[in-house]
Amino acid sequence: MNGAEKLVHTLLDGGVEVCFANPGTSEMHFVAALDRIARMRCVLGLHETVVTGAADGYYRIADKPAATLLHLGPGLANGLSNLHNARKARSAIVNIVGDHAVHHLALDAPLTSDIDGIAATMSDWVRTCPTVAQIGDDGAEAVRQAHLRPGRIATLILPADVAWSEFPAGPARSRSDTPAESAVHWSDREGNRDRIVGALREGSSTLLLLGERAVRGQARTLAGQLAAATGCGLLAEYFSARVERGAGRPIVPRLPYAVDPALAALAKYRRIVLVGAKDPVAFFAYPDKPGRLAAAGSEILTLSVPGDDHETLLRELCSAVGATGSAVLAGRATHGLQEGPLTLEGIARTLAAVLPEHAIVVDESVTSGRGFDALTAHSAPHDWLTGCGGSIGYALPAAAGAAIAAPGRRVIALSGDGSSMYSLQALWTMAREELDVTVVIFANRAYSILRNELAAVGAGTPGVRATDMLTLDRPVLDWLDLARGMGVPGTRVTDLASLGEGLQRSFASGPSLIEVVL
Amino acid sequence: MNGAEKLVHTLLDGGVEVCFANPGTSEMHFVAALDRIARMRCVLGLHETVVTGAADGYYRIADKPAATLLHLGPGLANGLSNLHNARKARSAIVNIVGDHAVHHLALDAPLTSDIDGIAATMSDWVRTCPTVAQIGDDGAEAVRQAHLRPGRIATLILPADVAWSEFPAGPARSRSDTPAESAVHWSDREGNRDRIVGALREGSSTLLLLGERAVRGQARTLAGQLAAATGCGLLAEYFSARVERGAGRPIVPRLPYAVDPALAALAKYRRIVLVGAKDPVAFFAYPDKPGRLAAAGSEILTLSVPGDDHETLLRELCSAVGATGSAVLAGRATHGLQEGPLTLEGIARTLAAVLPEHAIVVDESVTSGRGFDALTAHSAPHDWLTGCGGSIGYALPAAAGAAIAAPGRRVIALSGDGSSMYSLQALWTMAREELDVTVVIFANRAYSILRNELAAVGAGTPGVRATDMLTLDRPVLDWLDLARGMGVPGTRVTDLASLGEGLQRSFASGPSLIEVVL
Repeated sequence: MNGAEKLVHTLLDGGVEVCFANPGTSEMHFVAALDRIARMRCVLGLHETVVTGAADGYYRIADKPAATLLHLGPGLANGLSNLHNARKARSAIVNIVGDHAVHHLALDAPLTSDIDGIAATMSDWVRTCPTVAQIGDDGAEAVRQAHLRPGRIATLILPADVAWSEFPAGPARSRSDTPAESAVHWSDREGNRDRIVGALREGSSTLLLLGERAVRGQARTLAGQLAAATGCGLLAEYFSARVERGAGRPIVPRLPYAVDPALAALAKYRRIVLVGAKDPVAFFAYPDKPGRLAAAGSEILTLSVPGDDHETLLRELCSAVGATGSAVLAGRATHGLQEGPLTLEGIARTLAAVLPEHAIVVDESVTSGRGFDALTAHSAPHDWLTGCGGSIGYALPAAAGAAIAAPGRRVIALSGDGSSMYSLQALWTMAREELDVTVVIFANRAYSILRNELAAVGAGTPGVRATDMLTLDRPVLDWLDLARGMGVPGTRVTDLASLGEGLQRSFASGPSLIEVVL
Repeated sequence: MNGAEKLVHTLLDGGVEVCFANPGTSEMHFVAALDRIARMRCVLGLHETVVTGAADGYYRIADKPAATLLHLGPGLANGLSNLHNARKARSAIVNIVGDHAVHHLALDAPLTSDIDGIAATMSDWVRTCPTVAQIGDDGAEAVRQAHLRPGRIATLILPADVAWSEFPAGPARSRSDTPAESAVHWSDREGNRDRIVGALREGSSTLLLLGERAVRGQARTLAGQLAAATGCGLLAEYFSARVERGAGRPIVPRLPYAVDPALAALAKYRRIVLVGAKDPVAFFAYPDKPGRLAAAGSEILTLSVPGDDHETLLRELCSAVGATGSAVLAGRATHGLQEGPLTLEGIARTLAAVLPEHAIVVDESVTSGRGFDALTAHSAPHDWLTGCGGSIGYALPAAAGAAIAAPGRRVIALSGDGSSMYSLQALWTMAREELDVTVVIFANRAYSILRNELAAVGAGTPGVRATDMLTLDRPVLDWLDLARGMGVPGTRVTDLASLGEGLQRSFASGPSLIEVVL
């Protein structure tokens, strides 16, 4: 057994069963090991941003890490922006990055680079495996690190000679501890307990702001109970790794993205109780606008931080304030299919009408999707994933990863045309793996969000040359051609009825793309 | 005048006249400044790897730096792999990377990342401009750094508030020194002079190995004179930023890429004189093969290192050894167009036949192109650019940048299908800017190089699952669809006659793509 095989076995032992890969020469022994170890599913991406974005989407649905296989510093560099997004979503990933053989590094061959330095910028843990004897322990530690809560990015650098050398025989080393989720309990933050209970008793001047896994499952339900019993406000952070919402679940509106509506939404709250959420801040700074969004003088009380056991803490809070009644749950609305020209509201209503039970929506619709949240609240129960790091190009890769984590569930990627161009190679992986993904491209043929931002930062009305930098209509991107080129069938729609029909038809087969011409 | 406008003026003052850009909110003031300052040409790329790769290609032809405009840490991260290639090619680039406003950083908004750390991995100089008063000086210093020889990557981080604040009025600061190329002269390396002269007098057991700018212009001619006069060997490094070759220029074969032929090519030389080249090493390490390629016990003598004035040093060497005769120059062969099925040799002969005068070939043909060098040596004079950092995906972006640097010259990008998928977004920029680029895709539907590498590193013959990681034929990529989707017309060829006709036809108009089905 060589080092590469030992590493694959170690990953499998730690519950890592999927490897998203874009290998090169230095990873050939890892690739060869896959021939001999059938349990590891290996999924090829044609650009590393597909690889890391897919690992992010996989974690959000599977709640366990996938591995990536990346080629040296530049391969890791190509995957960095979606590692940034994964990290901000607190997704766990085990990156395996090949490196030159140790003795080759001193020769400064062309592909030599500062892999450690590159990895450090977007990883929570980085280690270079120094010798083959160490690969079992280092692999196990990488897996353990990734399993810590909240999810972490663990990067293990694997020199080629470590991969190809024989793993020393001998008594099996003791496996490292079974990955355990750290759980922080009530007692750890007890200093706040009385103040939080007191704040909730104040009712409508207090806000419960949910983040991380508090927007899912029982935690969400318990937060709903608290709101129902006390009259406090209930909001979720604008970006969440995975929200469980729709009919039968408490409605938790998102804090608005734009600064002014966000300020307005928070203005009435004198106390904000954070449940896995952060003290809310503006996405960007704007001249003459505040960066913090909470009302001046309001009190911020932390119930739990990401990685905590939000459910236990919320249950204890329910007991403390006597919130024993049930939450107000979203009813199931029967939305009719829409007709007429494409409007953002009509698109949202169409989506609400057709959303299948337990669909996974991966949302990077940017300017086109601002109204989707409210209008899909009463749809069939579904998961909603948003980009958490703000780096554009996460939706298509994450949709591929989510589909691999959840066979049988329909994944719907909502993406702007500008955003989709950062990682369109994901379409090929969808076709190759025959994934149940419907990709909806909102083709406004512009970096539309930037037109708003130009004004918002006080840069005025764009002239011809500035407009040129924000406009994608010369030439027009033809998404049907692009998808077909990668083996994904597509449809172009220019009215709401065709959109509804196109969506419903897409749910019956593997991957397809719908270009919505705005 | 705000900070962004001051910076644009400073770049222009330093001779930076083109900005390749993929901006976001934090760069909106820079974009707005372009409306008011018409001299800066701004070229949009839909992914940052297009932006940095184009800046690399631009430098190689223009011999002066372009700027890039990148959006925060993730935008820079997306451009890193082509910055790696640019750095290894010793191309100069001035990166302008937007950042949050300084007061916003402490809020840890989603897009916050360690921009400094990311930049440091692939830059020779990094600075964050702290205040608007400093932007003129910092911009000038970035330009000065980029102009040092050999070319350097200078990264200036521009906080949004520095861009939008008013640049303080007052007496104009003295402009920083005019960028000057450092020139190292003979005297600096005098210790070697006698030994180098002696080595050349040994004739055929000595090799002149050319790198960096020694493969161009007068330096190349002088090296040819030395070879003609002394009988010494003459080779160029396998990868070069820009080789000037073809009829009327000395033939300088490339050191082979693969280890065994490279060892064989160097085996007979007891002395290697480096002219801008490095002591030759293998691209990757392989079990049981050496990393250094020079014969054991051979002597390495450095005439000049990258950035030196190779021409002056070679001229002095010619005087010293009395090499006053002319070099052996490549004759102009009249190649006939080829017919019959596509073979790699036939493709090379076809290319040799049609190559237009002063064409710029950007070569990332990987396995398909290994024979091009020998068979195009007697074509019309042309420039040949290769990826220098080994990070795949440089050819299409670099071709776009080269075309912008050289209006009127035909650029021919030769690229594998696997390589092209890393940066296919460059096609859109070619269409938008109506660039004279012919993109030739060698569609072998595999990471063909990796099949060889799998065996070379001793990982054996790939089984089904390993083969799956190296194969791109499920589904087949349709390059005509992909190109059409981005506004570039295409042709698919399956025989040599169609390839020749397709190439010639393509030279008459703007961008087009030829898919060569292997």
